[in-house]
Amino acid sequence: MLQLIGFDGDDTLWRSEDYYRHANEEFISILGNYVDLEDGHVNDTMLETERRNLKLFGYGAKGMTLSMVETAIAITNKRISASDIHRLVEIGKRVLQHPVELLPGIRAAIEEVSCHHDVVLITKGDLFHQEKKVAQSGLADLFQRIEIVSEKDADTYLRVLSGFSLRPDQFAMVGNSLRSDVEPVVRLGGWGVHVPYHVTWAHEMEDGLHDDERSKIVTVDAPSAIPAAVAKLRELAAA
Amino acid sequence: MLQLIGFDGDDTLWRSEDYYRHANEEFISILGNYVDLEDGHVNDTMLETERRNLKLFGYGAKGMTLSMVETAIAITNKRISASDIHRLVEIGKRVLQHPVELLPGIRAAIEEVSCHHDVVLITKGDLFHQEKKVAQSGLADLFQRIEIVSEKDADTYLRVLSGFSLRPDQFAMVGNSLRSDVEPVVRLGGWGVHVPYHVTWAHEMEDGLHDDERSKIVTVDAPSAIPAAVAKLRELAAA
Repeated sequence: MLQLIGFDGDDTLWRSEDYYRHANEEFISILGNYVDLEDGHVNDTMLETERRNLKLFGYGAKGMTLSMVETAIAITNKRISASDIHRLVEIGKRVLQHPVELLPGIRAAIEEVSCHHDVVLITKGDLFHQEKKVAQSGLADLFQRIEIVSEKDADTYLRVLSGFSLRPDQFAMVGNSLRSDVEPVVRLGGWGVHVPYHVTWAHEMEDGLHDDERSKIVTVDAPSAIPAAVAKLRELAAA
Repeated sequence: MLQLIGFDGDDTLWRSEDYYRHANEEFISILGNYVDLEDGHVNDTMLETERRNLKLFGYGAKGMTLSMVETAIAITNKRISASDIHRLVEIGKRVLQHPVELLPGIRAAIEEVSCHHDVVLITKGDLFHQEKKVAQSGLADLFQRIEIVSEKDADTYLRVLSGFSLRPDQFAMVGNSLRSDVEPVVRLGGWGVHVPYHVTWAHEMEDGLHDDERSKIVTVDAPSAIPAAVAKLRELAAA
């Protein structure tokens, strides 16, 4: 029996990656004053710096900003001005202050799912920023529990499930990232609803799902289709 | 009856502020290449920048590093070199990587307290960094629950207590900060064990305790004295 439904936050409940994309465009445009942008070198170096720093910074806009500063200094061979570095810090601050814009239909979708199931929010990233976004979203009251986690892996999902005394096959996760939201849950024996977002962060692109695992996943193209997808998984789980 | 004892993390279980102090000394020494250090202007500006940014960054080393970069650019009137800004980022990274050094006697103190009470760790700061410190401390198994929070205020403590279905008068908090660890708990009707650390962050210095509230607090000078302090509060709570 399917009991508990988890919802991801960023790019599942509210827009997020758009703001990071925009920040990255501003970052690259500033570096365009120092280096040739044609060969994709800036993007590659930023991705590599971020990947290396994830182990130290975790996810979120503050780590991104520090990685931008580090990348900018390296790429310009220390020629970047303090004034332009200040602009990078301001870019990061704007990401931390962006308005919380709910995806269309998401509130109704959570409400409908919650008629049949307990619902929890499981969101990854910076504790302080995520708490602010949850508060501003106005959705907090819909969830039985709100878990802000540093990583979404098997251990994290098992810890959340143990708090509800549930097995993985009684749990489905709804989210935009196959890698973070769907794959670890399905691999544990649970279920997934994949709601792709129109942009995906490079570090979330990879997934290692097998064909037999894809039968435990329903993909939908809009939040309004989430309740029907959960109902479908409910049938599958009961069979 | 006193049931639950909360322990703070930074500067109560393990050294932390020392590393931040050292980072600040390195920061000031770099700025000494640009400006006159005599009048305390650097320290005042850094404190003011941090205070303003706390609302946006929350606590932790990543926010401190961004505030150092911002302060350095402002104080040097944008004269600071990219090379020196890179050194500031490296200072922040070293704070994030410092070894977790337990305060002498703290493990035995927690073990002894846990013979009489449930114990929880309630630590404030960056989720990712705090999780790493908890893991490296080797103390995680001693606690019934580990709460990493963005702020230690009345709401936070009430939320933790509701998870245990306890009232504030059944709870004592052990920590080095009167402002964060002791004052909000005592004001709610709970109890406090104050274990002053040899250095305290400027933003943790203020407290607004009244004289009648001080009777709910025992101050000790070392972790080894914590169990006796908790026993004293246990007697007072039972009276």
